Amino acid sequence: MLRVVGVDPGLTRCGLAVVDVEPNRRATLIDVTVVGTSAEESLDQRLLAIAHGIDAWLDRHRPDALAVERVFSHTNVSTVMGTAQASGIVIAAAARRGIAVALHTPTEVKAAVTGSGQADKAAVGRMVAKILRLDAPPKPADAADAAALAITHGWRGAAPGSHASATRTGGSSGLTAAQRAWAEAEAAARHGSRRR
Amino acid sequence: MLRVVGVDPGLTRCGLAVVDVEPNRRATLIDVTVVGTSAEESLDQRLLAIAHGIDAWLDRHRPDALAVERVFSHTNVSTVMGTAQASGIVIAAAARRGIAVALHTPTEVKAAVTGSGQADKAAVGRMVAKILRLDAPPKPADAADAAALAITHGWRGAAPGSHASATRTGGSSGLTAAQRAWAEAEAAARHGSRRR
Repeated sequence: MLRVVGVDPGLTRCGLAVVDVEPNRRATLIDVTVVGTSAEESLDQRLLAIAHGIDAWLDRHRPDALAVERVFSHTNVSTVMGTAQASGIVIAAAARRGIAVALHTPTEVKAAVTGSGQADKAAVGRMVAKILRLDAPPKPADAADAAALAITHGWRGAAPGSHASATRTGGSSGLTAAQRAWAEAEAAARHGSRRR
Repeated sequence: MLRVVGVDPGLTRCGLAVVDVEPNRRATLIDVTVVGTSAEESLDQRLLAIAHGIDAWLDRHRPDALAVERVFSHTNVSTVMGTAQASGIVIAAAARRGIAVALHTPTEVKAAVTGSGQADKAAVGRMVAKILRLDAPPKPADAADAAALAITHGWRGAAPGSHASATRTGGSSGLTAAQRAWAEAEAAARHGSRRR
């Protein structure tokens, strides 16, 4: 069993999720929250709130790995700097505790949970709910995205013989019986073609 | 007397300086260093090294304020994300200790130490050496830039009645006798017109 904290970094809303992933890919949501800070606060107080939030989260849940969204400078110029600053704090918090850190791009996460790298937020949320056996996606979207990151990483990390690392960015292992069952359920849920 | 830590953030070289600034603007370099990490290390280990570096620096020097370069997303796309992540860690480290944090743009720093927002790195280095009464600028340039940030902030913070804050970005106080003497020495050193 692999316990993964997923983080969707951001200054205004930083999504945090804890997902336990079993070797057969069964994923269970343990906890989810959003650390929010107001734009009226100073940058240092906002970043401090995020630092305290991730510290408490990691100490409480003691994950094996932390998966954080890989931030690109061209994503959204108006918010990307704050997002990057928050992600730096989150990554250092994990590294301080010897927790393995992995970065996944939004496209990788979408592909992992929906089968399509072009899936929209609603589709990601629906599949997150389905995978975690929830009645509805975690809210807000930042929380669902954090859960999706944790699932993405857990599925990679849980694959037999694979080893999660900060630099690993691609590759998919052969399908197990459970994975095939999941893939079929996924395809049925989406009523669409699967592109993985 | 105001003790200011200046930080020029970066993943490969993070410049750290400590400058004591007296009310009459006399500035003295107490210590300077560069925390360097190799691109061959994983991002989490690089950020951890920077976290440990700034933690030790702040605990050793116990500054009144920390001045860090304000990072813009359009500055250098290839390195800006790592720079922003490093700056987030530095800002949170100061905030954890209740140290006031101020952001200054490169233009503000150049204008403060040379009188021109368009000064090149060499001119900034020369003025930093002159202001701090050193035979040569601190090396590498990241260290000199960190010292320039500390001086910039110290001169603002040391101005009578002023109060440094994370959001303060402009304004210049009236010249004292010491400031006038400095301005004259600066003008003589630059052999050029002064634009402040």
